[in-house]
Amino acid sequence: MAESLSVKSKRFLKALNGEAIDRPPFWLMRQAGRYLPEYLAVRATPPDFVAFCLDPEKACAVTLQPIDRFGMDAAILFADILLVPHGLGQRVRFVEGEGPRLDPVTDGAGIDRLTREGFHDKVGAVYETVRLLAKRLPGDVALIGFAGAPWTVATYMVAGQGTSDQKPARLWAYRDPEGFGRLIDLVTEVTIDYLAAQVEAGAEAIQIFDTWAGSLPEAEMRRWVFAPIARIRAALKARFPHVPVIGFAKGIGAMLPELAPATGVEAVGIDAAVPLSFVRDRVQPGAVVQGNLDPLLLVAGGAALERGIDELLSTLGPRRFVFNLGHGVVPETPPDHVAALARRIRSWTP
Amino acid sequence: MAESLSVKSKRFLKALNGEAIDRPPFWLMRQAGRYLPEYLAVRATPPDFVAFCLDPEKACAVTLQPIDRFGMDAAILFADILLVPHGLGQRVRFVEGEGPRLDPVTDGAGIDRLTREGFHDKVGAVYETVRLLAKRLPGDVALIGFAGAPWTVATYMVAGQGTSDQKPARLWAYRDPEGFGRLIDLVTEVTIDYLAAQVEAGAEAIQIFDTWAGSLPEAEMRRWVFAPIARIRAALKARFPHVPVIGFAKGIGAMLPELAPATGVEAVGIDAAVPLSFVRDRVQPGAVVQGNLDPLLLVAGGAALERGIDELLSTLGPRRFVFNLGHGVVPETPPDHVAALARRIRSWTP
Repeated sequence: MAESLSVKSKRFLKALNGEAIDRPPFWLMRQAGRYLPEYLAVRATPPDFVAFCLDPEKACAVTLQPIDRFGMDAAILFADILLVPHGLGQRVRFVEGEGPRLDPVTDGAGIDRLTREGFHDKVGAVYETVRLLAKRLPGDVALIGFAGAPWTVATYMVAGQGTSDQKPARLWAYRDPEGFGRLIDLVTEVTIDYLAAQVEAGAEAIQIFDTWAGSLPEAEMRRWVFAPIARIRAALKARFPHVPVIGFAKGIGAMLPELAPATGVEAVGIDAAVPLSFVRDRVQPGAVVQGNLDPLLLVAGGAALERGIDELLSTLGPRRFVFNLGHGVVPETPPDHVAALARRIRSWTP
Repeated sequence: MAESLSVKSKRFLKALNGEAIDRPPFWLMRQAGRYLPEYLAVRATPPDFVAFCLDPEKACAVTLQPIDRFGMDAAILFADILLVPHGLGQRVRFVEGEGPRLDPVTDGAGIDRLTREGFHDKVGAVYETVRLLAKRLPGDVALIGFAGAPWTVATYMVAGQGTSDQKPARLWAYRDPEGFGRLIDLVTEVTIDYLAAQVEAGAEAIQIFDTWAGSLPEAEMRRWVFAPIARIRAALKARFPHVPVIGFAKGIGAMLPELAPATGVEAVGIDAAVPLSFVRDRVQPGAVVQGNLDPLLLVAGGAALERGIDELLSTLGPRRFVFNLGHGVVPETPPDHVAALARRIRSWTP
């Protein structure tokens, strides 16, 4: 079995499988990105970010950069969560210094204009990137595929841009839950196809990013965050029983212990604001946990960074734990600090 | 004793005191504001927002408007958390459609340019507003004074504006905790003076708003959120033992049960994302709780709003509970929905 061979040789997959390992594996959300000069060099062309994500050679190159430099235990496919609306026929563009802009979907007619037809053609370059990575990654580095969770993707599709409070999607969901549910269902279904194709191309684990889950009250969180992730997890499980799924629902705080039981994910991403004792006592017993160093500690560096790393390792390691940040690497991060982090984790002993 | 008379006659103060009452008191964060046409009429002049806050007749008038219209059990002084940096000599202005702009304080020299001298002169109009309100409020309506918590106020002082991630303050705090601590100490001390003067002018309860507490990891939350609030709470307690304090630390999720024990506040504000069972089981036993209806439900209205109100009342009421939103009223809110909410709470029986 290819799966068991992989699990045998890759620390990251062993950790997700709950096995005993020498030290926790590590990777960093947004480990490929603007803080690396070699990324900026490749990113210079083409100027359009969607086109860049859909250029397999370039996406593969930037995915490999942090692995080459720092030796993470896992690489995450370089792509963007808004490739799913792009694949559905929604116009997506990125404005320099402002972020993504989409032609908003605000009603049933807007949903009707989206189409699953041609989805795989529109995003097929992503699968090609995964195939290249599966060939080119070092043998002990695992490959993570990913997608945005339906709720978070829908917040962008409805607002037409990033919002601090996700007001347009939340209001639609309150006023017309059936109509909004139709959008969530469509995104859920196409995300299943998208992730299944990534696994078929060589992804060994999947992460689902629900960046904007934290604004929702409990009932809405169950309906728009937990239920769609559960549906994706079940569909993937039926086809690929050995591929683990990490759910990262940022900012859900007191609801975190319920994410894995409610969705079936094997691992739960933890943001930086969650206290480690809560993670250890209430989340880790039910799931592998991944996180949660403050990305700004990686900017600050020094003794504060070392203390943060050590506390995380000693509280949550070595088993059922994947070392990561609580959110993505920020552009101001000195690469030397990432190198120091990698050294410290590698030299750690329980 | 004036205090016991107030407590006897005012539902809001009884609730904060843990006494049995007929139904939970209610008020709404940002209940005076742009969703009310009568607010917009008064707000039209002067154009400068700081000057508006420092006009006692106008600030008093807009504070009373929602009480006249909806009959809340408490009124909160109309002011802004950035009056404290204004009082310290930092330049504060509000740009229409963009929000506050301050000349950033980014180092020790910047802190040295701030001064407590003349603080009460610069913000004395606020105390006059409180005196007017104490005279003009209906006899059964409690008067709440407030300030921003030192952490949240400092995030604006350091960034010079609102930020989604509070990066400038968080980085300063990591790189130079002693230097940043000097800013926090200064804001803490002047906030104690500011709140004490509000109580002397007639405020019967105090709310401390820590809107941006949710981005901090545990150790930083204890140092920059809990410790300064505890210091303010203790200083007020020494002078005004009967005046209750509500702490509202938005987005702190799993850390919520620790807020009251760590700071000594009598009541804890709850944001909309916290599940009610967690509030009931983990927070309410140690503090009166206040919250947490999603402000967007008040925009949506209808059956969803009614269900939300009923669930909140039946789960957290009638004792040790103050009905409120999870965050401020938003400008799109139809006043009719607020009227419907007021009717529903008033007619509720346990």
